[in-house]
Amino acid sequence: MPAVSAPAESAPLAHAGCRNVAPVLNRVGDKWSMLIVMILSDGPRRFNELKRLVDGISQRMLTLSLRGLERDGLVTRKVTPSIPPRVDYALSELGQSLREPVSALGEWAIAHIACIRTAQAAFDARGASD
Amino acid sequence: MPAVSAPAESAPLAHAGCRNVAPVLNRVGDKWSMLIVMILSDGPRRFNELKRLVDGISQRMLTLSLRGLERDGLVTRKVTPSIPPRVDYALSELGQSLREPVSALGEWAIAHIACIRTAQAAFDARGASD
Repeated sequence: MPAVSAPAESAPLAHAGCRNVAPVLNRVGDKWSMLIVMILSDGPRRFNELKRLVDGISQRMLTLSLRGLERDGLVTRKVTPSIPPRVDYALSELGQSLREPVSALGEWAIAHIACIRTAQAAFDARGASD
Repeated sequence: MPAVSAPAESAPLAHAGCRNVAPVLNRVGDKWSMLIVMILSDGPRRFNELKRLVDGISQRMLTLSLRGLERDGLVTRKVTPSIPPRVDYALSELGQSLREPVSALGEWAIAHIACIRTAQAAFDARGASD
């Protein structure tokens, strides 16, 4: 039944695609970049708003992450020549397409955080008793 | 219409959840961990198989990533007492639940790698001409 597309298997992705995916995941699979994409999903933000909303990010890491996201074409940077100049960051069209997979991962993280904390505590307890 | 559940908004995730999500994304939102999860989606693997399949990973980074994934309860480590001992890594039940969001991100990466490369080249060219 060629009209029915089979669900994508992870095999070709992991094997044939591994070489290609790794560099993209460098950016996309980066905690700060993912949090920035999640926040920009709500609309454009200024640098200091992002700094406040991305809990725990340093000024330097935010600058680097935004530059990386801009370089990858995921985020646009719009300078309004006021005094002082106003700089807004927003998801590009490409960045918009990343909203869904990134928010699925974020939702997974929220849903499973308790399991992970429990597993961590058990692992650490085993290590301590060895 | 309370029977129809609205699509999850990113706003609560990004804001209220940001503090909680960040540490989980430390692991999940890590390139190597994601690649390992993708590969283990096909079934258990031994250390050296993983080393070969996760293109570009160092022995040390693979060891650290696997230990982190085990600590988080995402990967199990089974030692068979043969000579030499055989060690198999597999996704736990919790790790299985991560397959879908991680593979969605991997598929996004594969689908958009050309766009990203083009954006990077354009960004670098702008930088060079500044």
